[in-house]
Amino acid sequence: MKLLEDKILNDGKIGEGDVLKVDSFLNHRMDVAFLSKLGEEFYRLYKDCNVNKILTIEASGIGIACLTAQFFNVPMVFAKKTKTVNIFSDVYTSKVESFTHKKTYDIIVSKEFLLPGDRVLIIDDFLAQGSALNGLISLVNDAGAELVGCGIVIEKAFQPGGDLIRGRGIRVESLARIESMSCANGIKFCD
Amino acid sequence: MKLLEDKILNDGKIGEGDVLKVDSFLNHRMDVAFLSKLGEEFYRLYKDCNVNKILTIEASGIGIACLTAQFFNVPMVFAKKTKTVNIFSDVYTSKVESFTHKKTYDIIVSKEFLLPGDRVLIIDDFLAQGSALNGLISLVNDAGAELVGCGIVIEKAFQPGGDLIRGRGIRVESLARIESMSCANGIKFCD
Repeated sequence: MKLLEDKILNDGKIGEGDVLKVDSFLNHRMDVAFLSKLGEEFYRLYKDCNVNKILTIEASGIGIACLTAQFFNVPMVFAKKTKTVNIFSDVYTSKVESFTHKKTYDIIVSKEFLLPGDRVLIIDDFLAQGSALNGLISLVNDAGAELVGCGIVIEKAFQPGGDLIRGRGIRVESLARIESMSCANGIKFCD
Repeated sequence: MKLLEDKILNDGKIGEGDVLKVDSFLNHRMDVAFLSKLGEEFYRLYKDCNVNKILTIEASGIGIACLTAQFFNVPMVFAKKTKTVNIFSDVYTSKVESFTHKKTYDIIVSKEFLLPGDRVLIIDDFLAQGSALNGLISLVNDAGAELVGCGIVIEKAFQPGGDLIRGRGIRVESLARIESMSCANGIKFCD
């Protein structure tokens, strides 16, 4: 999506360790009007799929998922992160490894909010190793719901998550796919 | 707001320990179309205040803050919770005590996203003891920004946070104010 690629080039910063910082519009300060255009693009991509629920993960997925849900006119559910290892009988749980924060945490979603027969579109801001996305997919499967596909704002295509998930036959649409990035050479998008 | 009070009565549940559960529409599953109406009401209340930024705190404030920001056509910034005690020079920090989770954590916001001269409306889903709200107000003050007021979805008016903050001359608008609630006697709203 050209609009997003331009925004990343204009407003994104590459920080230490070649980390992409887009917190001026995506995950700290949210440019809501701009993010709504991304939500509209997800709608264009998935509008014929009878989506009846959007699923994301706290925290930075919530904004874009909300704005996307508006176009589909469906509710949004966000999985919660928890460090408690209690066994809850009324939630689906999955494990997610955070490479950024170097820890593993559980994510949970109440069983009453993810139902067999739901047609779920997963929305998230980033896809790199795919750990969060795999965790969300696992929740959808555990619920016996149908996964329509995934909508990602920025995919780090030089990391394996996206291709591994596509390799399982799951539709993954990323609005910007970064082929490479570094302080030295800047950001290059996939064709 | 009658619409919200009815929603709370219809869809809210009072759980163990007389905890109000509204996770079917507000803070786990989000009824985005409904929450957008709450955002519109915040706009009606604050539309003449030249708000140029919405501030909230992760995670469950993000949705309602995003939807509110759409009506004001301004960006939204969410404070992040962190347990790291590092001193960051590029962020404003404040301490928040969570009574629900019985712990204290730091919240941070990047200095570049909260500026002197900003006219800030703080939005959050709940107000009870007022700890999160006080933390957010403190960030606004530290930035030298102007606090226009606070917009709260549900205030537990039987707890002291709201009145203490109003007592400091700060405008706090809560769309539903609960006077009392218990499993035995249900929910009663303030007049």
